[in-house]
Amino acid sequence: MLVQTVEGMSKKFNMDIRNLSEVTRIDRERKVVEIKSLKTGETYEESYDVLVLSPGASPIKPPIPGINEAEALFTLRNIPDTDKIKAYVDEQKPKKATVIGGGFIGVEMAENLWERGVEVTLVEMADQIMAPIDFEMASILHQHLREKGVNLVLEDGVKSFEKNGKLINLNSGKQIDTDLVILAIGVAPENKLAKEAGLELGLRGAIRVNERLQTADESIYAIGDAIEVKDYINGHATHIPLAWPANRQGRIVADHINGIDSKYQGTLGTSIAKVFDMTVAATGNNEKTLKRLGISYDVVHVHPSSHAGYYPDAFPIALKLIFDRETGKIFGAQAVSYDGADKRIDVLATAIKGGLTIFDLPDLELAYAPPYSSAKDPVNMAGYAAKNLAEGLVETVQWHEINDILADGGYLIDVREPIERDMGMIEGSVNIPLGELRDRLGEIPTREVYVYCQVGLRGYLATRILMQAGFKVKNLDGGYKTYSCVFE
Amino acid sequence: MLVQTVEGMSKKFNMDIRNLSEVTRIDRERKVVEIKSLKTGETYEESYDVLVLSPGASPIKPPIPGINEAEALFTLRNIPDTDKIKAYVDEQKPKKATVIGGGFIGVEMAENLWERGVEVTLVEMADQIMAPIDFEMASILHQHLREKGVNLVLEDGVKSFEKNGKLINLNSGKQIDTDLVILAIGVAPENKLAKEAGLELGLRGAIRVNERLQTADESIYAIGDAIEVKDYINGHATHIPLAWPANRQGRIVADHINGIDSKYQGTLGTSIAKVFDMTVAATGNNEKTLKRLGISYDVVHVHPSSHAGYYPDAFPIALKLIFDRETGKIFGAQAVSYDGADKRIDVLATAIKGGLTIFDLPDLELAYAPPYSSAKDPVNMAGYAAKNLAEGLVETVQWHEINDILADGGYLIDVREPIERDMGMIEGSVNIPLGELRDRLGEIPTREVYVYCQVGLRGYLATRILMQAGFKVKNLDGGYKTYSCVFE
Ligand SMILES: Cc1cc2nc3c(=O)[nH]c(=O)nc-3n(C[C@H](O)[C@H](O)[C@H](O)COP(=O)(O)OP(=O)(O)OC[C@H]3O[C@@H](n4cnc5c(N)ncnc54)[C@H](O)[C@@H]3O)c2cc1C
Ligand SMILES: Cc1cc2nc3c(=O)[nH]c(=O)nc-3n(C[C@H](O)[C@H](O)[C@H](O)COP(=O)(O)OP(=O)(O)OC[C@H]3O[C@@H](n4cnc5c(N)ncnc54)[C@H](O)[C@@H]3O)c2cc1C
Ligand SMILES: CC(C)(COP(=O)(O)OP(=O)(O)OC[C@H]1O[C@@H](n2cnc3c(N)ncnc32)[C@H](O)[C@@H]1OP(=O)(O)O)[C@@H](O)C(=O)NCCC(=O)NCCS
Ligand SMILES: CC(C)(COP(=O)(O)OP(=O)(O)OC[C@H]1O[C@@H](n2cnc3c(N)ncnc32)[C@H](O)[C@@H]1OP(=O)(O)O)[C@@H](O)C(=O)NCCC(=O)NCCS
Repeated sequence: MLVQTVEGMSKKFNMDIRNLSEVTRIDRERKVVEIKSLKTGETYEESYDVLVLSPGASPIKPPIPGINEAEALFTLRNIPDTDKIKAYVDEQKPKKATVIGGGFIGVEMAENLWERGVEVTLVEMADQIMAPIDFEMASILHQHLREKGVNLVLEDGVKSFEKNGKLINLNSGKQIDTDLVILAIGVAPENKLAKEAGLELGLRGAIRVNERLQTADESIYAIGDAIEVKDYINGHATHIPLAWPANRQGRIVADHINGIDSKYQGTLGTSIAKVFDMTVAATGNNEKTLKRLGISYDVVHVHPSSHAGYYPDAFPIALKLIFDRETGKIFGAQAVSYDGADKRIDVLATAIKGGLTIFDLPDLELAYAPPYSSAKDPVNMAGYAAKNLAEGLVETVQWHEINDILADGGYLIDVREPIERDMGMIEGSVNIPLGELRDRLGEIPTREVYVYCQVGLRGYLATRILMQAGFKVKNLDGGYKTYSCVFE
Repeated sequence: MLVQTVEGMSKKFNMDIRNLSEVTRIDRERKVVEIKSLKTGETYEESYDVLVLSPGASPIKPPIPGINEAEALFTLRNIPDTDKIKAYVDEQKPKKATVIGGGFIGVEMAENLWERGVEVTLVEMADQIMAPIDFEMASILHQHLREKGVNLVLEDGVKSFEKNGKLINLNSGKQIDTDLVILAIGVAPENKLAKEAGLELGLRGAIRVNERLQTADESIYAIGDAIEVKDYINGHATHIPLAWPANRQGRIVADHINGIDSKYQGTLGTSIAKVFDMTVAATGNNEKTLKRLGISYDVVHVHPSSHAGYYPDAFPIALKLIFDRETGKIFGAQAVSYDGADKRIDVLATAIKGGLTIFDLPDLELAYAPPYSSAKDPVNMAGYAAKNLAEGLVETVQWHEINDILADGGYLIDVREPIERDMGMIEGSVNIPLGELRDRLGEIPTREVYVYCQVGLRGYLATRILMQAGFKVKNLDGGYKTYSCVFE
């Protein structure tokens, strides 16, 4: 999507811009493209020295039974698509809408429809929305969507549409009545031209390019949503249809055409979305990706405040850092918050590009005044926590391990105050508040224990106290807060 | 300033915290300190293996005639000081306040008093407030303060107080009637103990330490506002009394005492303040510092939007980048905006710590969605602009050079639209809108020209067009927007 007018750009850049013109064929031998004018229907040829393909990606619309009969079913790619949806909502005043797909487009649509007073159901095949982040982080958003009144249906897909799309049958057998359907289940690279011209395709049919963004034909570059890129973190091929990479690639191709040798470094996949009142942002690889690739990693979850607690409107940021314990390499980071998630992910994306490791994060000298951060920024905190783990000062267990540990007879100490337990606790845990721990060591019946607190900090301190007293101890990473995102 | 209670910290950390206790002497030979209890008046000794000095810095209160008779004159160091000022405002309901000093404490006080409905005069000796940024950037804040109704008095100082502080005589002869005076003209390191103990002092009397933060006596560490630090950018000694360095230093000393070898890298000076509705943030060295040290540098000013223009509440960020044209080294950055300044300075502070140069900034993959940024983030834009300069694609002139150039008969083309000139222009410039430039080259009477536009972008494009047509041309960096911060 481009946010400029034809006249504006033509005048400024002395460009010959032909809109309403579809390229229908590339003749690589003769170095010409065939163009069909959508105004006149006329077809003509244009020659090129170099050709840049930037055809984007189009919304996936699978052959679900009844899909073609669905009357109020929309996909979303460009401004005209948005206009159509807006017109439909303005004129038909739908009461109920169903959004299929919990990616950033689906979630943004859910939010916008909700803002217009439409009752929204969001159907997502996976067990979570927002694929770039991991399950426990997405769970914070699930809670938020449900609080807002969105009917969130996870682990279920559309089997068929009936009644011209007014009735949706899900795989589970569930049925949804709806006045409007938004289909946002992903995009597929526009590869028709490239494929027909015999250019090499890669993952998910994306056009394959080299570091200079040249296709198999060196006179033909390809950029944007249509291409396969290298994952900046793990080096494998991937497909990341986002605006920053498209932009950067465009500039690199312009450089290269003009004789400046510039290479695309690969895509980190930094992404962000507004989810109602919250922000979710991520960069680099998530656990799911690392697991799939068999790369070993460690994780810390912290929940520091977006800014100083004594200044109004501070909110905790759920910040997750994924890294290599040996080298300190940062694989990725995820943040969910009402405020300040964008800044921390941008800082971490910059740290990754600067080759900084978790060992360097405490040394990031970030701007502090009460309205903006704390004297120790959340990124510093995540760094300290990761470093403590890497240096063996603490061992941790993750949110998804603790229930099994308890079931197997593990001894779990809750080091919070009794009043905090009243607000929610892990069943089967024993309460010894941190302030009393040193005096109550005798009560602990086993040498192997687990501890937890609200966010991980007091748990860490308890771990240190217990380790020094000779216990073998692990702290629940991210504390009750991370655990309860999922188990509540 | 510490934001914790004595009980909370004692319990959690098993610490012996003695408040209302003043250390009055260090006996290095015997490794004891002399402590005076402010509750009982009693004096006793305590021995140490290692001693950590963190006495901070105290507000400077020079012997200005009449200062001791001034009744409603306050300085500000801690919570009790704040309470006193608040009590005075609540009870005496002053109509007029005078803040002396335009650093971040002075400006924050001006804002808070203004919020309480007090008429505020701010007196600053230098030609600008907010010393960490340069004059043209501070000028944006000067405009903002004046718009808010603050009576801003620059390049003037207090000569004397009369009438128990109700009348202030300035050096210029100006007189100010006031009900309340806040003195915030800087802080001086608390060095009395260190000095008397014969420890080495440095710049402005700050305690001198090595990389491990040890004083001349290796059993005595010193940290925080009391110490001299190394400037991270230029390596020279400096004194930067901020909370991030104090915190980081505390942790490094703790590490070192516990046998972990950890070094303080020096202070970058990343700082931030809320100035009424605006934010000012900076990192690294400013022009003033580099000039003083005789380091050569280049500058770009850009004014990109805090986020996508088509999403509500986007504001331009005045972003200044100072760098070395040869190596690309980033010396510093400054940002002033209603929104998003903190994020960009944190990203740039991280880039500096990662050893990234201006050539890397376009490759920073930052999070984009319309509420948060643009597909090209302001930091990317600043990087592109700096790179264009470093690679010789454009030459620029600065805001402070253009008036002299015009006075010397220079030919300056305004490439904006006529309607933009109506809103303000540089006197003596000739108008040729960018869209017409290619066709009107014949009108330009000389081969050496200067161009400007609103923010520098169209000026850059005009520069490229003119260079390709054989002109020798320089673009006004930052455009009319940077120029008019000062000359309007
Ligand atoms: C609703 C929506 C919201 C988005 N929000 C964000 C966001 O917040 N952040 C983000 O990073 N990304 C976002 N994106 C993704 C972003 O828009 C894309 O990554 C970016 O536009 C890709 O640029 P591109 O040039 O590759 O493709 P596109 O912008 O899709 O442009 C491709 C163009 O090529 C044209 N075309 C295709 N085939 C031909 C042909 N044969 N002949 C002529 N023309 C052809 C298409 O009509 C289209 O105009 C969003 C996308 C959508 C749909
Ligand atoms: C109003 C105000 C606002 C600020 N805002 C910011 C901000 O937004 N961002 C930022 O980065 N920084 C800010 N600062 C600066 C920040 O507070 C300091 O950099 C930081 O507190 C320094 O920590 P320190 O331990 O060196 O000194 P301090 O926090 O000053 O602590 C020193 C302590 O030592 C005590 N002491 C001194 N001598 C003795 C002695 N002989 N015996 C016993 N005790 C002694 C003092 O009473 C004091 O309690 C602000 C400062 C002020 C005054
Ligand atoms: C007051 C203060 C010193 C108290 O510190 P604290 O209670 O120990 O809390 P900290 O934030 O220092 O964290 C303590 C430890 O817990 C660890 N920790 C914190 N959160 C954690 C988490 N979620 N999981 C695991 N470990 C965690 C930290 O890494 C740290 O460990 P380490 O120092 O042994 O590596 C601290 O809050 C502080 O420095 N505040 C700043 C004061 C200030 O802002 N002054 C300026 C005002 S202008
Ligand atoms: C539409 C678009 C391509 C127009 O680009 P444009 O008008 O050329 O503006 P650009 O931002 O690319 O800047 C052009 C040049 O001016 C330079 N420039 C910009 N501001 C400058 C300044 N203040 N001083 C000096 N040079 C400046 C840039 O460095 C660039 O130069 P270069 O490319 O020769 O190095 C651009 O705005 C864009 O990419 N938008 C993103 C679209 C989008 O957001 N899509 C996603 C929607 S989901």
